[in-house]
Amino acid sequence: MGGSTFGERFKITTFGESHGAAVGVIVEGVTPGVEIDEAYIQKQMDRRKPGQSSVTTPRKEYDIVQIQSGVFEGKTTGTPLMVILYNHDMKPEAYSDIQHAFRPGHADYTYLQKYGIRDHRGSGRASGRETAARVAGGAVARKLLERRGVQVLAYTREIGGIACRSFQEEVIEENAVRACDPEAAARMIERIEELARRGDSCGGIVECRIRGVQPGLGEPVFDKLDAELAKAMLSIGAVKGIEFGAGFAAASMLGSEHNDGMSADGFLSNHAGGILGGISTGEEIVFRISVKPTSSISVSQRTVNVRGEEQEIRTEGRHDPCICPRIVPVVEAMACLVVEDHYKRQAALLG
Amino acid sequence: MGGSTFGERFKITTFGESHGAAVGVIVEGVTPGVEIDEAYIQKQMDRRKPGQSSVTTPRKEYDIVQIQSGVFEGKTTGTPLMVILYNHDMKPEAYSDIQHAFRPGHADYTYLQKYGIRDHRGSGRASGRETAARVAGGAVARKLLERRGVQVLAYTREIGGIACRSFQEEVIEENAVRACDPEAAARMIERIEELARRGDSCGGIVECRIRGVQPGLGEPVFDKLDAELAKAMLSIGAVKGIEFGAGFAAASMLGSEHNDGMSADGFLSNHAGGILGGISTGEEIVFRISVKPTSSISVSQRTVNVRGEEQEIRTEGRHDPCICPRIVPVVEAMACLVVEDHYKRQAALLG
Amino acid sequence: MGGSTFGERFKITTFGESHGAAVGVIVEGVTPGVEIDEAYIQKQMDRRKPGQSSVTTPRKEYDIVQIQSGVFEGKTTGTPLMVILYNHDMKPEAYSDIQHAFRPGHADYTYLQKYGIRDHRGSGRASGRETAARVAGGAVARKLLERRGVQVLAYTREIGGIACRSFQEEVIEENAVRACDPEAAARMIERIEELARRGDSCGGIVECRIRGVQPGLGEPVFDKLDAELAKAMLSIGAVKGIEFGAGFAAASMLGSEHNDGMSADGFLSNHAGGILGGISTGEEIVFRISVKPTSSISVSQRTVNVRGEEQEIRTEGRHDPCICPRIVPVVEAMACLVVEDHYKRQAALLG
Amino acid sequence: MGGSTFGERFKITTFGESHGAAVGVIVEGVTPGVEIDEAYIQKQMDRRKPGQSSVTTPRKEYDIVQIQSGVFEGKTTGTPLMVILYNHDMKPEAYSDIQHAFRPGHADYTYLQKYGIRDHRGSGRASGRETAARVAGGAVARKLLERRGVQVLAYTREIGGIACRSFQEEVIEENAVRACDPEAAARMIERIEELARRGDSCGGIVECRIRGVQPGLGEPVFDKLDAELAKAMLSIGAVKGIEFGAGFAAASMLGSEHNDGMSADGFLSNHAGGILGGISTGEEIVFRISVKPTSSISVSQRTVNVRGEEQEIRTEGRHDPCICPRIVPVVEAMACLVVEDHYKRQAALLG
Repeated sequence: MGGSTFGERFKITTFGESHGAAVGVIVEGVTPGVEIDEAYIQKQMDRRKPGQSSVTTPRKEYDIVQIQSGVFEGKTTGTPLMVILYNHDMKPEAYSDIQHAFRPGHADYTYLQKYGIRDHRGSGRASGRETAARVAGGAVARKLLERRGVQVLAYTREIGGIACRSFQEEVIEENAVRACDPEAAARMIERIEELARRGDSCGGIVECRIRGVQPGLGEPVFDKLDAELAKAMLSIGAVKGIEFGAGFAAASMLGSEHNDGMSADGFLSNHAGGILGGISTGEEIVFRISVKPTSSISVSQRTVNVRGEEQEIRTEGRHDPCICPRIVPVVEAMACLVVEDHYKRQAALLG
Repeated sequence: MGGSTFGERFKITTFGESHGAAVGVIVEGVTPGVEIDEAYIQKQMDRRKPGQSSVTTPRKEYDIVQIQSGVFEGKTTGTPLMVILYNHDMKPEAYSDIQHAFRPGHADYTYLQKYGIRDHRGSGRASGRETAARVAGGAVARKLLERRGVQVLAYTREIGGIACRSFQEEVIEENAVRACDPEAAARMIERIEELARRGDSCGGIVECRIRGVQPGLGEPVFDKLDAELAKAMLSIGAVKGIEFGAGFAAASMLGSEHNDGMSADGFLSNHAGGILGGISTGEEIVFRISVKPTSSISVSQRTVNVRGEEQEIRTEGRHDPCICPRIVPVVEAMACLVVEDHYKRQAALLG
Repeated sequence: MGGSTFGERFKITTFGESHGAAVGVIVEGVTPGVEIDEAYIQKQMDRRKPGQSSVTTPRKEYDIVQIQSGVFEGKTTGTPLMVILYNHDMKPEAYSDIQHAFRPGHADYTYLQKYGIRDHRGSGRASGRETAARVAGGAVARKLLERRGVQVLAYTREIGGIACRSFQEEVIEENAVRACDPEAAARMIERIEELARRGDSCGGIVECRIRGVQPGLGEPVFDKLDAELAKAMLSIGAVKGIEFGAGFAAASMLGSEHNDGMSADGFLSNHAGGILGGISTGEEIVFRISVKPTSSISVSQRTVNVRGEEQEIRTEGRHDPCICPRIVPVVEAMACLVVEDHYKRQAALLG
Repeated sequence: MGGSTFGERFKITTFGESHGAAVGVIVEGVTPGVEIDEAYIQKQMDRRKPGQSSVTTPRKEYDIVQIQSGVFEGKTTGTPLMVILYNHDMKPEAYSDIQHAFRPGHADYTYLQKYGIRDHRGSGRASGRETAARVAGGAVARKLLERRGVQVLAYTREIGGIACRSFQEEVIEENAVRACDPEAAARMIERIEELARRGDSCGGIVECRIRGVQPGLGEPVFDKLDAELAKAMLSIGAVKGIEFGAGFAAASMLGSEHNDGMSADGFLSNHAGGILGGISTGEEIVFRISVKPTSSISVSQRTVNVRGEEQEIRTEGRHDPCICPRIVPVVEAMACLVVEDHYKRQAALLG
């Protein structure tokens, strides 16, 4: 409905434009009586915020979490939990030159086609700024999942063609690109800095692992757990693809290779990525997403303006040359939302 | 909700198990006054049915379309259009040996975990049989899209590691694997027949092109057109991944390469796959899905039974050694459902 | 959505026209592992069927319950439970005279305005026949509620101005009008028979009591338990009003009279009708609905035809002179659906 | 879902507790390009605010409308329109004595039963304060309906047993009780003031007329226009019943009296209240609601505390002795939401 609502029994509704007054989220379906505070949500917001390192935009968004409802004396009440994040450091004048021209790779053209009207200060509702509200909502889901023993972990697998060769969980939050291999991370950073100097950008691959999910979650047929994770991930602006378990490699495997056998100790492999028939197996849920290179580049590009006249454009302003490090907490937030929602749907089915 | 409903304003709700009495669909939101009959839907059913060639299962499902409501004197009335497909040629006894053991790659284990009860005659609700109802519902959407000038075309791009090298639209329905390259098709068929003799199976890649969609369709943020297509495709049992436009290749491209410039004549390329910011650009919408090798193989595999005891299992019965040719009409059906739904959502927004 | 779906976590979707092939229902969200069979549902269908007595239409609908999915070896599987009821004893020719004229009190005119097309054989989707599918779906909900100790009881309170003066639960199913007072029942029957002879009809008031509902069910703000019951009841064709507890009488009471005090033993009165702030108190839930006189009468009435020309019309055919006795099982079915759904929503909230 | 969302294609999601930081609303599905500003919404808020006269609570809520998103340069953008209303003049200490006791007629007991936790400062989410968010959302709907030529008008029909004898539209906003008969209004005010002095309260009947709705709006079966209006109205805290057109009087009418005949000039009467088969006829839509006496009274009442101990209670604080005048704009807001939503649903059906 209008695209700003996500979830069935644990649900978020977001609002806000990048250069409007605020962005925010209403979280519905929150289990009552759970301890949560602004600091807990703020911690996730800070992982997403710009200006964390040399490879992210120096733009400041602040993102000071303000809970406006749904928490009383430090505990959730079960009523809608609302978080507002007032916008700061907006420089709409920086966008005056794009007021009439469509930036390649952006939603300028499609929004105008859809609505017949466009907030031309930045990307409006299509801005990555919108994901701040997701992270706030996802933090509430994360809190509930902690009580269930579920852990959601995303990280960079590849950037600019440089792939991680090892998986070292403990280094992920220690490097600026949130990669799982410190040596690859160093080369990724170098690559990003070089591209930034040229005004260009690059993409990458982010992987996510969800651990501790009980077997039996997910709805058959249309609301399969992987189908809903796929929707959640593709709803993130820069994502162009997703694969679960063996993913695209499964296309060239044999059934006898791909099928995960079982022993008395459990599954013998996890090509399925933790989901069979759309329902969790209890194994680790694993998926990877393809992240496109940031659309905002200062390299000159061909485009047209609202009158259809051709022109050159350079997207000036302060942008991330690679969005992967900052997309990681957004991926985690969306995954948390999907999994918590499915726990609640399962409770309804059996309840 | 329970996973058997798909869509918002053009919506299907399906029911039925592979070895129950029937499968079927209720289609809601059908534009009134549109000519449709059972023959039109039957045509799509026949594209999906088994036994079409040497590479598909010889199992007969018949799938005789019976419209039970929503059509009066050859025209839709706007009320729920119900199609029932009675099951035939069921041999549940063929499944007696799997009554207590979990077939690798199947949802046997996860369904039991979810529901605590399992219809062990075939795959029940998790069977590919369920997609018959989707194709019936999708045919109604296709009819409505025809009036809008929208065309949805899916075909096999790769099977068993053999990729198409050309795109020849006219050959797709002429070869048993629905590939877009007749030479590749011949080698694919050979490969499948060889695997079938060994009791093994293989996967592949299916591509889909949606043409004629007006710019401006899709909802921002969560219900992006690509997000909903991703959900739709991942909801098909054997699908393990999806990518739009440049897809996973975008991860190693530069922004200056990936961005689609514009001229007065339109977009200069289509790396975006016809969707920007979740909204259609008016260009061809292009995506590819990864199809896993059929799980049912007669090669011996390790598994456990419901008591947790280890055993060997061979999935006997009549199965498709490669599901790609039969998944093609299902992909088209789901794509039709998503696109028609978004046309109606857009009408609501502006209406 | 299109109006044919009801419920959130326990949900029914219905289809079918009065003079089409069949009516039926898909029930989603059914708790798995619960014993149910066609006979159980048939019993409720038989309470609704026509031809039960001298005061109901002699039309035969049969309504033979056929479960097509969702039940395996006598137990629910948790997947969609589909019931189809094939139509019989249709005499569309009886409606040939109303093909072009709008019957007063019917939806003929409004359906044509809405859809631009109309199934003129009987009332199509607007027929009372549609409620058969509700009763089938409601029977599944009733089964689940039995396990919770919830009892739903509706009965006639007043017909044609004749009101019950006593409440004798045991007589309800013993008299043809399902009234709670046998003396009033006798007079009601007399009144209906007299009106039937004149080709006229009358309305009445039906009351419903829901017992054994745990305190705490219902969602605050918009999805209050009474709000959803109100929607459920007003969705029944002939219903023109609803009131809970003191209802319209509350409008002329003082706060000091209306407020239900509490003692250590519970509430001291039940003016609230078992619901406070939209949430169940644990007291009996009580509401009454106003049922309009049957629209189909053979008294001559003024109307127009589809060309706007004035004419006289008499709705011939076999109709109930008073719909109250047959609406009773429909009221119960809808109440069951609402309450079971709210149990499941509550399970999701806390789950 | 959690009860804080209303509507399908024109949808509001509200948040906020009476004594929390703020209440507010996200409005989705707003037609883009429509002129709207804070002043327009403020005007409706001011009609609902307390302290308007001697018969309403002197409590000040201010309700300063702040639009945070969805409007750009004075026009709607089609993205979520968010309005926040910060709370002021809260005196939670006034509620310290009710921290542990259940106020009769309030949702204190049921909320605690539902959530296991309760915001005891005022009524939290169950407070009438919550309706401020509805009025803000409803104002946006009203703006869209103005363009369609639809007018929604509610007013007091009866208070404390004193009924209006005439309908004088122009006087409604001129008297403190928003009654349609100035003489009755004077007596109602007198009655309320007398009850206020005694610390007691009274109820009443509010009527609503919706004019200019095109024929053909409303969905058949479950989402009938009257069913959805009924839900909308019963979702308002103090409402105990609703009736359309002839309403409860229809129960004692004959079919020949109740049926609305038609002539070439349209319907000859409007016992149906403008809706047939759940779909608008094009006539005025008319319904009445029963409003219970305000639960907060300073007369001593019997109740129990959270430990189940009996006690006397007087609900001190500043309350409306009769809520009718302030419920009028809430009724209008909810009616606007329902009607605008159905226009958009109809656009989707035909679009």
